[in-house]
Amino acid sequence: MNLTGNLLIGATDVLATEGSMQALNPATNEWLEPSFAFGGAAQVEQAATLADAAFDSYSHTSLTERAAFLETIADNLDAVRAELAARAALETGLPQAQLEGEAGKAATQFRQFADVVRRGRFLQLAIDPAQPERQPRPRMDHRLQKIAIGPVAIFGASNFPIAYSVAGGDTASALAAGATVVLKAHNAHPGASEIQARAIRKALQQHGLHEGVFAMLRGSGNAIGEALVDHPLIKAVTFTGSEAGGMALYRRAQLRPEPIPVFSEMTSVNPTFILPQALAARGAPIGDGFIERMLVNVGQACLCPSILIAIKGPGFAELRSAMIHRVTAAPARTMLTPGIHGAYVKGLAALQSAGADPVAVGTPADAAFEGHAALLEVDGQRLLAEPALAHEVFGPSALLVTVSDEEELLAVARALRGQLSAAMHLEDADLALARRLLPILERRTGRIVVNAFAHPQEVTFATVHGGPFPATTDSRFTSVGMSAIERFLRPVAYQGFPDALLPPVLRDGNPLNVPRSIDGQ
Amino acid sequence: MNLTGNLLIGATDVLATEGSMQALNPATNEWLEPSFAFGGAAQVEQAATLADAAFDSYSHTSLTERAAFLETIADNLDAVRAELAARAALETGLPQAQLEGEAGKAATQFRQFADVVRRGRFLQLAIDPAQPERQPRPRMDHRLQKIAIGPVAIFGASNFPIAYSVAGGDTASALAAGATVVLKAHNAHPGASEIQARAIRKALQQHGLHEGVFAMLRGSGNAIGEALVDHPLIKAVTFTGSEAGGMALYRRAQLRPEPIPVFSEMTSVNPTFILPQALAARGAPIGDGFIERMLVNVGQACLCPSILIAIKGPGFAELRSAMIHRVTAAPARTMLTPGIHGAYVKGLAALQSAGADPVAVGTPADAAFEGHAALLEVDGQRLLAEPALAHEVFGPSALLVTVSDEEELLAVARALRGQLSAAMHLEDADLALARRLLPILERRTGRIVVNAFAHPQEVTFATVHGGPFPATTDSRFTSVGMSAIERFLRPVAYQGFPDALLPPVLRDGNPLNVPRSIDGQ
Repeated sequence: MNLTGNLLIGATDVLATEGSMQALNPATNEWLEPSFAFGGAAQVEQAATLADAAFDSYSHTSLTERAAFLETIADNLDAVRAELAARAALETGLPQAQLEGEAGKAATQFRQFADVVRRGRFLQLAIDPAQPERQPRPRMDHRLQKIAIGPVAIFGASNFPIAYSVAGGDTASALAAGATVVLKAHNAHPGASEIQARAIRKALQQHGLHEGVFAMLRGSGNAIGEALVDHPLIKAVTFTGSEAGGMALYRRAQLRPEPIPVFSEMTSVNPTFILPQALAARGAPIGDGFIERMLVNVGQACLCPSILIAIKGPGFAELRSAMIHRVTAAPARTMLTPGIHGAYVKGLAALQSAGADPVAVGTPADAAFEGHAALLEVDGQRLLAEPALAHEVFGPSALLVTVSDEEELLAVARALRGQLSAAMHLEDADLALARRLLPILERRTGRIVVNAFAHPQEVTFATVHGGPFPATTDSRFTSVGMSAIERFLRPVAYQGFPDALLPPVLRDGNPLNVPRSIDGQ
Repeated sequence: MNLTGNLLIGATDVLATEGSMQALNPATNEWLEPSFAFGGAAQVEQAATLADAAFDSYSHTSLTERAAFLETIADNLDAVRAELAARAALETGLPQAQLEGEAGKAATQFRQFADVVRRGRFLQLAIDPAQPERQPRPRMDHRLQKIAIGPVAIFGASNFPIAYSVAGGDTASALAAGATVVLKAHNAHPGASEIQARAIRKALQQHGLHEGVFAMLRGSGNAIGEALVDHPLIKAVTFTGSEAGGMALYRRAQLRPEPIPVFSEMTSVNPTFILPQALAARGAPIGDGFIERMLVNVGQACLCPSILIAIKGPGFAELRSAMIHRVTAAPARTMLTPGIHGAYVKGLAALQSAGADPVAVGTPADAAFEGHAALLEVDGQRLLAEPALAHEVFGPSALLVTVSDEEELLAVARALRGQLSAAMHLEDADLALARRLLPILERRTGRIVVNAFAHPQEVTFATVHGGPFPATTDSRFTSVGMSAIERFLRPVAYQGFPDALLPPVLRDGNPLNVPRSIDGQ
């Protein structure tokens, strides 16, 4: 595919209006061709207007038609998989094989959401039939379906340049819901973004859908994102990235004359608790496995396990030395962007200033934007006194928190902010302590893992990639898994409708054979 | 029941700390005994701390236990029904018979939510079983349930002193979800509030539940509500009332360090479209029925049909004269509070200043806070030029909007803000126009009614009492009907759990026999 560097708005390729950029290869610190266009408020206006114009027809596509469209996107992604992974590797410094896997996962997500659409359960169809004989007055027929909330703004993330970017789960779930999408591409991987956006636009054309269903914008600085969040035709926003970025968008959207939902997925240290019997039985493999997972994606992952909490006792020395060994052996690796690399270096220094002791470092960097692995440690009392120690440092570092007893372990758990995930490593003899820890974790996390790590994540029906603030801005939703579609749906009730006027999925006799509850059954 | 006028915090009756008030009988303009206590930030702290302390035990009650508690509340409400209705009548000027009905409806809601709890569908249990043989890596077992979001602040409404107040749908659905509740009572009916709060507290004691599950506060001015919304232990807010009040709470909650969801249900004119064939066939009864429903509760209802849109043509004269006739015949009736009465008088004047012509008035008031019925009219072009004409005037007034053709009718529909409901009156020959109007209404309303009016509302599974802004602050939820519980629930995933550590509803073999989806089926 020839990269043009243009914005994609409707069927039109839009040239730069506010300057342009080139992608940086962070491994070589060299600029990549071609130039990529920046747009501004005028392009936001154009894309949002088209997204609004496309909404009525797209949101009313049949389940079959919409599912087929999503599958075509998946096919189109498969067709460019190698090229996409190669370009993404150049732009991110991540291994091409890993990125091919990520591209495959992105295509799979579109197929999974096609399946969700076809099954129709997400419509949450409910019928409360008329009761003409009811006293003192008859009950009318009521029928409920969920419909899309409106045109949606999606901000591509930097760290997974496919699965959380242009063709990521946000786009897949929004399109599955029947929402139209204006995507703001991340500047860290503009070429990979264009390849994905073209795969989506091509599918729109293959299915003869309205050109406004999907657009991809790009801009310099924050202005284009702000214009997008401010636009009155945009009805919801999703974001994956830093706490500062996610909160800026969230607060801005809440100050609109018409506030709109913003699902920002922001920060998590994914605390991992090693209960005493598990520590005694498996200290070394747990420590080794923890660091192995921490190093995935050079630690640049929302699910990076960053804090390990263990009670000093049998197995602790083995755990600690396995962590040290694996960190020490880890090669420095290229980080996604100079900015992320700089923030990582600063974050490590901040942990030390806050009282964490450096225990081990990996092979030092020998290129500009390589991040070295790091292990720090702190005792529970210090962590309780200095909550900043439990804030995320985005990159390949881990904090080992040593607590003196069960009460201190529970106190550390209670001091944690909201998290995407937490893990407990336990043996049967640890169950009593686990039962005390569990309600604390339930109130603070979206997912609790036993005897494994938050990474890797399954994308299934029971997946939750969400959690209390500041993990996300709304703990009632998830951005990964089949329930991610719920962020973009709202209920509408139809009362006393003649059959011919009802949406087809709600008509008498269930002609489309979609699951429906009748009087709640 | 002896009214004490105290705040109810935990098992304790708390005396006034910030002055006190008496209830006004708006029909006689006389103060009622006794004095009712005002609290302040210290009482918010006390109630929120107790609600947080109660959360773990209450949110983990079994479905059976929680359902039985809700049913006891219903029984306790039934036991005080006559007394409650009598006191509410004194405090609101509403008819006692209507208020007995409302008390019965409130009790029914608790029983309905008890049924929802027992069935367990709201938990949205999902299991994705382990796949140990899967390649390239095994899949772990994942299980999802929904749990309560945390302690919730509920603001009682003024206009339905029972069904949208202390023992209203917000409280019923929050308690059903497993959330603990700090309720801020409305000062318009403090005695009725106390009777309801005592019914809830008594049920807590009958079931031996934690005293912090429910508290009722009251305060002078906005300070206590602000302290409640600001409190870090409060995790969600619901409000029913004016747009100004609802937005003030919403914006305040979004400025917290940790923003929280606020469901404010605020304003709706419930536009009613009369399509040409229905107008020709049934102009007079439609006009009469519209005004009849407009007058319910002296027009002080979120679902009050306030705007009627019709194309000039056959049947229009009959429609208009039926509306005039019914308005002219309507006696002035006591409004809820002096403030609401004053705002109604000002709202009518504002409609006229904006260009609406007065067409008919009901019997003039002969007491201080009586509101007279009013019918105004305007043409479609004027409404399109002056959007303020389509804003709600809370009280017994209606606006007749005359449009010249179908295109102008659709243009008026497009110009409307978000609504709780809309209605279409139609005959079979109107279906083509209805099909053009429907998608416009779907994007702007939570409920669409055919050949009836928004009032009365069924409380069922397919009920939606929600809608796009400014009808509510989040169109994805409803505050009435069985789905109202969703506002207070968040998903948690359990991965790789030993059976003994799983929540009982998620254990192998489904010992509690609750509906669960397996791999999405």
